[in-house]
Amino acid sequence: MLFSRDLEIAFGDCDPAGIVFYPNYFRFFDTSTAMLFAEALGMKQAEWAARYDVLGIPMVDTGSSFKRPSRFGDVVTITTEIIACRRSSFDVHHQLFNGGQLAVEGRETRVWVGRDSQNPGGIRAKALPAEVVRALGHEPAEG
Amino acid sequence: MLFSRDLEIAFGDCDPAGIVFYPNYFRFFDTSTAMLFAEALGMKQAEWAARYDVLGIPMVDTGSSFKRPSRFGDVVTITTEIIACRRSSFDVHHQLFNGGQLAVEGRETRVWVGRDSQNPGGIRAKALPAEVVRALGHEPAEG
Amino acid sequence: MLFSRDLEIAFGDCDPAGIVFYPNYFRFFDTSTAMLFAEALGMKQAEWAARYDVLGIPMVDTGSSFKRPSRFGDVVTITTEIIACRRSSFDVHHQLFNGGQLAVEGRETRVWVGRDSQNPGGIRAKALPAEVVRALGHEPAEG
Amino acid sequence: MLFSRDLEIAFGDCDPAGIVFYPNYFRFFDTSTAMLFAEALGMKQAEWAARYDVLGIPMVDTGSSFKRPSRFGDVVTITTEIIACRRSSFDVHHQLFNGGQLAVEGRETRVWVGRDSQNPGGIRAKALPAEVVRALGHEPAEG
Repeated sequence: MLFSRDLEIAFGDCDPAGIVFYPNYFRFFDTSTAMLFAEALGMKQAEWAARYDVLGIPMVDTGSSFKRPSRFGDVVTITTEIIACRRSSFDVHHQLFNGGQLAVEGRETRVWVGRDSQNPGGIRAKALPAEVVRALGHEPAEG
Repeated sequence: MLFSRDLEIAFGDCDPAGIVFYPNYFRFFDTSTAMLFAEALGMKQAEWAARYDVLGIPMVDTGSSFKRPSRFGDVVTITTEIIACRRSSFDVHHQLFNGGQLAVEGRETRVWVGRDSQNPGGIRAKALPAEVVRALGHEPAEG
Repeated sequence: MLFSRDLEIAFGDCDPAGIVFYPNYFRFFDTSTAMLFAEALGMKQAEWAARYDVLGIPMVDTGSSFKRPSRFGDVVTITTEIIACRRSSFDVHHQLFNGGQLAVEGRETRVWVGRDSQNPGGIRAKALPAEVVRALGHEPAEG
Repeated sequence: MLFSRDLEIAFGDCDPAGIVFYPNYFRFFDTSTAMLFAEALGMKQAEWAARYDVLGIPMVDTGSSFKRPSRFGDVVTITTEIIACRRSSFDVHHQLFNGGQLAVEGRETRVWVGRDSQNPGGIRAKALPAEVVRALGHEPAEG
């Protein structure tokens, strides 16, 4: 499953060099991952969090490489894919294209977390439900 | 009570015109108001919110006028004052100086809110406690 | 001329109270004004700035009032209108609707600026061209 | 050379989970790198860019891992070090501590770039001057 969306770079996304201030790419990618989940699961995060009794998918590790700049008014395309699913964590891959050329690449490792019943207020990793893994385009590991 | 702080403008605060992207001034002012409350009440927001059983001081109305630009590396001074206290709302005035000259002026109207006991999950304005009003430099209205 | 767009509130737009952090509304409104100009003038800002030999439309004064909160996943509608055009400045009015109800109202005063030929590196207000005033839905003042 | 600074987490740095929205760590780290350069070179970026006839130090690749969350009002310490200098690129390492514990780790690869004399408007990597390499705490490669 490949999620794709177009985004127009805003003036306020850019820095005094006239190009996107790179922390904003992480903001764009965070939104793409949320949109992929909403599309894959057929409901918004507030709903799937309630349905699966989880709190969300916090980031553990992320990185990006910047190959070409983008500027105010550029319409870029971001494609997003879940490239690996483990017991309770998964990896995301983003590619941002500008004028048909790969401009930024991003990767994320996130965890499926819920409330920790042993520790009020705490969170802990939970096993990704098989139907979520399938919706993300992967095969659940055998029980 | 006048709260003052210095702030160095970051690269990422600025836009392709090379000057602070104006929505960031609202972010700066929000932090100054929080710092004024922490100083006036002698504790951080998490603590005073617990002590007075409130949720915070959400914004009702805010505005700014921009007289001079500021740039990456400029060290600006922001002064903040509570200029009016009413039963459950209050007004804040900010001035941002760059090189000794007034560069931005901001005003805020905020409300002291707590949980609404009639409406689970809802919030409602609460009366500002007299000791909070005094700590903010004002005289409580007579009961 | 009324410009309208829909926007889905992102997780990163929201604060610990679970609602849009209000400085982000100014970011949304800035983008709406840029989009209105692009649509009214039929070209992106880089092009109209070159065509009219100007640098942009910096903000002089802006304000917002917040009537209802918006949350992650809400799809809001922002309508934007140029409500007054003067010689070199103009006023913008924004309304943000959530679930059909007015949630935020914003106003802006901006200036049409170009390079200052008397002062290298400086900027100065320039007269709005009659065709720009007309494209924004107003009648140019008589010469 | 290890650059260190304290930072108080602002309300607007945090997300609906009540913790710092991770793209903001990249913003914090960008500022720390700029401050390290200003301290190492003894002047602000506008001055060293002019002195060495360069445009800046754009990001090529960056990543972070998130070990512990930080919240509104936490005072964190960020330490920053240039861990490798090559001909025209260099690597930066950041550690963010909260309550004495490592909370976030970041790495950056940046390039020392100037105007491209062959290509008006373009940029190209330039060799890091020996005195800059030394100021960053490294030994210049032999010519």
